[in-house]
Parts: sequence; C-alpha cells; structure tokens
Amino acid sequence: MNRHVTFFYAPQTRASGTLALLEALQADYTIHTLDLKAGTQREPAYLAINPMGKVPAIRHGNAVVTEQVAVMLYLADLYADRGLAPALDDALRGPYLRWMAFYGSCFEPAVMDRSMKRDAGDPTSSGYGGYDNVMDTLAAQLATGPWLLGERFTAADVLWGTALKWTMQFGLVPDRPVFRDYVDRVAAVPVIQRAAELDTSYASPQAA
Amino acid sequence: MNRHVTFFYAPQTRASGTLALLEALQADYTIHTLDLKAGTQREPAYLAINPMGKVPAIRHGNAVVTEQVAVMLYLADLYADRGLAPALDDALRGPYLRWMAFYGSCFEPAVMDRSMKRDAGDPTSSGYGGYDNVMDTLAAQLATGPWLLGERFTAADVLWGTALKWTMQFGLVPDRPVFRDYVDRVAAVPVIQRAAELDTSYASPQAA
Repeated sequence: MNRHVTFFYAPQTRASGTLALLEALQADYTIHTLDLKAGTQREPAYLAINPMGKVPAIRHGNAVVTEQVAVMLYLADLYADRGLAPALDDALRGPYLRWMAFYGSCFEPAVMDRSMKRDAGDPTSSGYGGYDNVMDTLAAQLATGPWLLGERFTAADVLWGTALKWTMQFGLVPDRPVFRDYVDRVAAVPVIQRAAELDTSYASPQAA
Repeated sequence: MNRHVTFFYAPQTRASGTLALLEALQADYTIHTLDLKAGTQREPAYLAINPMGKVPAIRHGNAVVTEQVAVMLYLADLYADRGLAPALDDALRGPYLRWMAFYGSCFEPAVMDRSMKRDAGDPTSSGYGGYDNVMDTLAAQLATGPWLLGERFTAADVLWGTALKWTMQFGLVPDRPVFRDYVDRVAAVPVIQRAAELDTSYASPQAA
C-alpha cells in the first residue's frame, strides 16, 4: 500500500503535534503550508479539504482526515510497524483510545473555557465536567509514568506532550511538577526535539 | 479472545448510544446501571473506574475505556466481524475516524455552548470554530447519504443518529430536513429501534 500522505499544516498551531508525529513515524509525507494570518485556511481550495478551515488535516489517497485526534489515530495505525499505536488486540488499545479521545472531548473544551475565563456550566450536562476534574484526572494518569500509558511511548505522548507544552506556556494548565516533568520528558525525546526545531524553522520569515 | 465487556450505563444519557452499539454488535456484555440523580457516579467505587464521574465507560479484561468516542471506536473494533467499523486498511477508515472525532471535538462543545447561550469565541483559537460552521459541515456530509459515510452503515451512525436525536429534541441543533431525515433513518433501523425501547425501559421506575 502506498503510504504517502499530504499534510495540511501551519507552523506553531494545533498542527505542530501532527508534524512531530509524522517525523516520529518516519512517514512519507508532503507538507502543504497554510498561512493562517493571511487567511488561506478560509479560501475555497482549503475549505474543500476541511470545511472547518482548521489544521491539521491529511489526505491519503482519496481519503481526507481532519481533527487532530483522528489524524493522529489514523497516522499511527497507517505506520503501525513504527510501534507508536498499540495494536487492536493489545491490552493498551482501549486506554490509548481513551486518552486520545479525552484530549478532544475534555481537555480542549476545558482549556478553551479557561482561556475565555468562563465556567464549564452544570457538571452533569457539560461534556467534560469541570476544569479541575480534567486536570486532576490527567495528573493522576501521568503520575504513573513515565509515559501516558506507562512504560510504552505512543502517539498519545506526541499529542499530549506537544499540547501540554503550549497550553502551559499560555498559563492554561496549572503549573504542577507532574505536568512540567512530563512535558520536559516528551520534549527531550530526540525526534520530538528535532520536530520542534522544524516547526520553529517553518515559522521563521526565511522559510515562508 | 474473551470479548465480554462490563458496561457502565445510565438510561437516557450519553451512554444510550453505547447501549445501541452494544445491541447492534450483538456484544456479550453485562450492564452496570448508575443512578445519576442519586449521584452514584460520584461515589468512590465508580470514580475508580472513571474519575470524571461520567458514563459511558466499559471494562474489558483489565482495560477501562471512557469517553463516548473512544468507547465506540473500541467496541466496533473488538467486534470487527460484525462489520460496523471499517478495517484499518479500508478507504473509509480515515473518514470514519474523522467523523467520530468531530463529534467529541466539534459537535459536543458547539452544542454545549449553544445550550448555555454563549459564543464559541475567536474562531481561530477556538477548538471547534463556530456553531454554524459545525452544523453546516455536518449537514454537507449527511447530504451525501444515506449514511454518514455514504452507502455503508457504521458505528458512526449509531453515535450520530442517537446524538442528533436528543440534541434536536432539546432544540440544540437546527431543525433542518437533512438532520431530521437522517435521525429518522437511523431510528428506523430495527436494532436501533429495539435499543431505544430498551433504554426507555431501563429508565422506567419498575426497572430500577
């Protein structure tokens, strides 16, 4: 099977985690950079890929995948031989899906509400419950360590390591040792470090 | 492999879609009902399963899976022989993951904001963009039909059919023919119909 993917990207955005994953997977990919400041993500050419006008998105053959969690799940399975996704029959598969979904369904809405300085609303009807509960639940899981799922480094660490790094920089996640140590641990993985440099280089004017 | 799962459930909640999926998969499961009004979801026994105090959750062997999207992805793959999940090498796998993730990352936050009568905030930084954009994107995808992914009925239809049904009942989704027709189409699938009756029966006082 041809595993080449086209990667729709903008530097230092939610797509940065996907860049790191593509690098970690040693994936065969072509990068297509969007200029979010110029608004190219809202031009018809890109809306035909992702009507939400967001990055990341990927195209593999005729299939388009959008939404960070879906993109990462898809890529890690496409390059299953790289070992970053527990296989379907692996005991870690369920926890892997759980913490990937937790990012999109709980962490992102909680962080967005925090950035807008507003409450989660009624915890029973709210999709994610409450901000503190999200952070405590995540902290408890990370405390087992060294990685999110324990001894095994997976695509979930690429997602969470990069997401926690920028949300901590923006003060949207509490500055607790368990988060700081985890962010440092992921950032120190050589391929993640190289991907962060690549992400920075794409953001510099010379690269534009 | 033993495919028996324990299902943590409460009637007529976000767990109702998972009940429908378990029925559609003809899964081997034991139901564990929580009384949300009595607050059993916040008692230590359940918080040990899901510290977020939410349903649905499942346990399969020693693995616990929470978050509706993760639970459904996991179950549909566990019972892959029932044909409700496109296989890893199926061209529909990417779109399947995309629209599952879209539910948790875009639809739920958009609907929650609508229910609380508040804006999404800045569309560039917001996780989901804007309410109208979410509804239009979903409507465009459903317009291809008859199912979310086209000709093939999948677990994504179980999720979206049940989720759209209740959000439309609460007036949180625009009353457009494309949504109404889709909800009716999914609800008319015999096993979905039976699961809805089961969900109602579990909610009646006699069943408690």
